[in-house]
Amino acid sequence: MTENEDGKMLYFLGPLGSFSHQAAMAAGERLKGALRLETHLAACERAFDVIGHVEDGDGLGVLAWENNVEGHVVPNMDALTDALEVAGFGLLVQEVAFDAFVRPGDEDLRQVVAHPHGLAQCRRFIVETGLEPVAAPSNAAACRDLRPGQVALGPAVCGGLYGLETYRSSVQDFQGARTDFLLLSARREAAGLARRLGGGPGGSPRTGDRGSAYESVVVFIPLDTGPGVLAGLLDRIRDAGLNMTSFMSRPIKGNDGTYSFMATIDAAPWDPSLRDVMRESVGRGDWVKTLAVYPGRQRPEPPIAQWMLPRGGAGAGKAMGPDGLPGMDVDKELLW
Amino acid sequence: MTENEDGKMLYFLGPLGSFSHQAAMAAGERLKGALRLETHLAACERAFDVIGHVEDGDGLGVLAWENNVEGHVVPNMDALTDALEVAGFGLLVQEVAFDAFVRPGDEDLRQVVAHPHGLAQCRRFIVETGLEPVAAPSNAAACRDLRPGQVALGPAVCGGLYGLETYRSSVQDFQGARTDFLLLSARREAAGLARRLGGGPGGSPRTGDRGSAYESVVVFIPLDTGPGVLAGLLDRIRDAGLNMTSFMSRPIKGNDGTYSFMATIDAAPWDPSLRDVMRESVGRGDWVKTLAVYPGRQRPEPPIAQWMLPRGGAGAGKAMGPDGLPGMDVDKELLW
Repeated sequence: MTENEDGKMLYFLGPLGSFSHQAAMAAGERLKGALRLETHLAACERAFDVIGHVEDGDGLGVLAWENNVEGHVVPNMDALTDALEVAGFGLLVQEVAFDAFVRPGDEDLRQVVAHPHGLAQCRRFIVETGLEPVAAPSNAAACRDLRPGQVALGPAVCGGLYGLETYRSSVQDFQGARTDFLLLSARREAAGLARRLGGGPGGSPRTGDRGSAYESVVVFIPLDTGPGVLAGLLDRIRDAGLNMTSFMSRPIKGNDGTYSFMATIDAAPWDPSLRDVMRESVGRGDWVKTLAVYPGRQRPEPPIAQWMLPRGGAGAGKAMGPDGLPGMDVDKELLW
Repeated sequence: MTENEDGKMLYFLGPLGSFSHQAAMAAGERLKGALRLETHLAACERAFDVIGHVEDGDGLGVLAWENNVEGHVVPNMDALTDALEVAGFGLLVQEVAFDAFVRPGDEDLRQVVAHPHGLAQCRRFIVETGLEPVAAPSNAAACRDLRPGQVALGPAVCGGLYGLETYRSSVQDFQGARTDFLLLSARREAAGLARRLGGGPGGSPRTGDRGSAYESVVVFIPLDTGPGVLAGLLDRIRDAGLNMTSFMSRPIKGNDGTYSFMATIDAAPWDPSLRDVMRESVGRGDWVKTLAVYPGRQRPEPPIAQWMLPRGGAGAGKAMGPDGLPGMDVDKELLW
């Protein structure tokens, strides 16, 4: 990795003005504040290229990981699973918010330009203004190439970047959407960087009531298939007292019928509890890889109340017959 | 549901010429062949509207469910989980393939038009032809609004639909991408339709070595949180001898820290094994809903061979030291 008095490169998915660019700018601030590390941002054409640069030892990277509406960014997940020399060492949460921009002084507005997803996420604004929607290859490109009479939708960073006026702020329909980005480094440096981000080499950041100051993302591929393989793995995780905040099975790309399991666990890989689980899995011949370790997030842990549940469904105390057994409603909800 | 001699409505995500349209046409053929059911296709502006029409009793629906590259379509998954009167009764696999279209007789080609995702999935074709890429709101819209000098990228169905000439077939970079679509009906009709699709009321379609002719998609929301809740649920599934082909944890939307679990299981909800697991979960107060039941797919079950594994990683017999214990490589792969 290139590190000298000029700092390190930090690669992100472009173009300039993308949400990834905004995340990279925030990452640069955090690395400067917490690690006294200067970074130079560089845009890549594809997420794959971000991983490639880090794999080649060119510097650090920022990669979109999970969105609270769309879920995990599966192609990025698969690419990181398959990368040889890369691992995540930090997690960065970015709000997904759109501003509406115009060219300075422009008043006769007729069209609104954005990526089709951006247009879909700002429907209310488009209906209210009556502007004609026009597709662009990206939100950032819409801002960069803005013409007279057009409004562009994009991340706040685009305003200063392209010399635009903010016509209206936060025009997205859904407030509260956010994307988690992983900070990537060379594998051999990831654990050290995570520890430094979490409070210095010997430091102990928040330990909380979960017993670890870190979270890890680990992929397990059991060499056996069939009923019980997954339950057996999760038994070992449970028996070790580890808490998972996310779990997903994924077919192995191009090989129907084979599966990998990705777990986000409230522990560092070097914590004895998680270390023993991984050691046992490797010992029995499973394929195991830690994709990331980073200082843990503060998370709410609310009780699950009735009002939070999806509509319909059996159980949750509401569909039992007078004899305590499931009634007609249950048949409907379970398709019995 | 509207059913008379004129048949039923079948709703899909438009515009005309979308991959969903192509899936709906295939669904119509299958419903006609297997159930002698005539359908009339109707395009909706949003996936949410497809579910809404089925929920209102207007007819059947087709919903994108899972892509083998991008993963589950999480917003559709969440919307179906929260829908009151809708369930899936069939699964339809569609290849994701792009044809390149031109206006009849057009020869002086300068631009290529598609949704940004379509452009990204046909990069090689664009590089080879040297055409200038232009974004469209959808691939179908690119075909519908095609101008002289332009090539549009879209599903094969667009050719006949918009009177275009096929310039080249199957121009997507990645061969083998596919999307699974769910066929939706009113909840009270879903189990009956699934049985009819699977071989008639008393029929028994493929039983195979997994013991059931059906697959089910079930959402569980345990009312307790904390370590072991998930493992406990999966223990009960394992102890019942049930095989899962997919499993995912999802935060409950808008409520950080709460989770739902979606499992795809090789059994019908009325099979005693799955029935007992659901009964026990409901009995202990969990929220449970069957989202879909459909005739099972034939799936390959290959052994996991070395060459199928992602790169790097510990285990799989390759990184053990001479004493049978994990060596240096393991430290690197696990971030110890």
